[in-house]
Amino acid sequence: MTVSRPTTKRTGRRPGVSDTRDQIATAARTLFAEVGYEQTTFRRIATTAGVDPALVVHFFGSKEELFRHVVALPQTVADALERLAEGPRETVGRRVAEVVTSTLEDPVSRTTILARIRATTTHPYAAQLVRETVTQDLARLAAALTDDRPQTRAVLAGAQIVGLTFTRYVLRAEPLASMSPGEITDQMAPVFQHYLVEPLAS
Amino acid sequence: MTVSRPTTKRTGRRPGVSDTRDQIATAARTLFAEVGYEQTTFRRIATTAGVDPALVVHFFGSKEELFRHVVALPQTVADALERLAEGPRETVGRRVAEVVTSTLEDPVSRTTILARIRATTTHPYAAQLVRETVTQDLARLAAALTDDRPQTRAVLAGAQIVGLTFTRYVLRAEPLASMSPGEITDQMAPVFQHYLVEPLAS
Repeated sequence: MTVSRPTTKRTGRRPGVSDTRDQIATAARTLFAEVGYEQTTFRRIATTAGVDPALVVHFFGSKEELFRHVVALPQTVADALERLAEGPRETVGRRVAEVVTSTLEDPVSRTTILARIRATTTHPYAAQLVRETVTQDLARLAAALTDDRPQTRAVLAGAQIVGLTFTRYVLRAEPLASMSPGEITDQMAPVFQHYLVEPLAS
Repeated sequence: MTVSRPTTKRTGRRPGVSDTRDQIATAARTLFAEVGYEQTTFRRIATTAGVDPALVVHFFGSKEELFRHVVALPQTVADALERLAEGPRETVGRRVAEVVTSTLEDPVSRTTILARIRATTTHPYAAQLVRETVTQDLARLAAALTDDRPQTRAVLAGAQIVGLTFTRYVLRAEPLASMSPGEITDQMAPVFQHYLVEPLAS
């Protein structure tokens, strides 16, 4: 995985407060995604960000606070999900697949999602965050599409997203790991379409 | 999760070697499943099993060896998967869903699968094991069913299994967490059918 770190312009000035804060946040997000919650220590974050560990404490207080801050999903993703109900019903599965794929292609949001998923196995707060995304954000979309068991549809579509993310980025199982975003979208679209709007087994 | 521990008969005899070995293996499997690889120490296994830590070392040597031993999937699961290609093609998705559901309902194999999935986030060997199940065992089934991209079909079906397991048992997201095995089978069957035998996007 490529580590994207904000580049500090080499102007000879000391980096400003918000630069340092962003640098720490990016280092933390990357570590949470790559080594998990338990092994991401303030010391390791500080080393990765190239700052004094005291600064990490200064800016973020506790590890849980830092975690909450860096794994907040961009509002654009929630907005995009909400708008999906507006287009034609027969292609909503494809639109969901496109949002999921493009969210996972973006390095910051991919790292955010991986940080959450890795942390769920050891950290209850992370499990709660992923559960909320799966059950609430998707349920709003499902409820806008149908009256027939929107919660069930949301959690089934959510399980598909979790499975795709885990298998492609954590397990790196082939051929899924090497598929292009377009191929992923093509393969996921009919399943999202099924879970979200087609008749479910009763 | 209910912890299933082998009950030692209270006959007043010291438990035999194989009883003790099984007791250690069950304790280890449960801990790997519940707290992950890193936090499962020999001391914690010994405490859970009610034996001396030296016995854990005596029977299993290293933590990795112990892990390999306890997360081996019962041969019956591999056998069941292989036999699935034999029945009618139009119901193979349902048969896969039934094997997956019954494997996850069985306390020992569920604990085994959860131990593997939790460990993948921190331990490369576990990731390799899950990757092999996803790519090899399922690919044999897919190849017996069709010549059209069996590896792709296997990994897509595998991602569905990983997503179901993670969302139901690790995230415990509702309503998936409370669904009956029959409901899970009903909802998963059409998706396995799609991934394994229906036309895929090209």
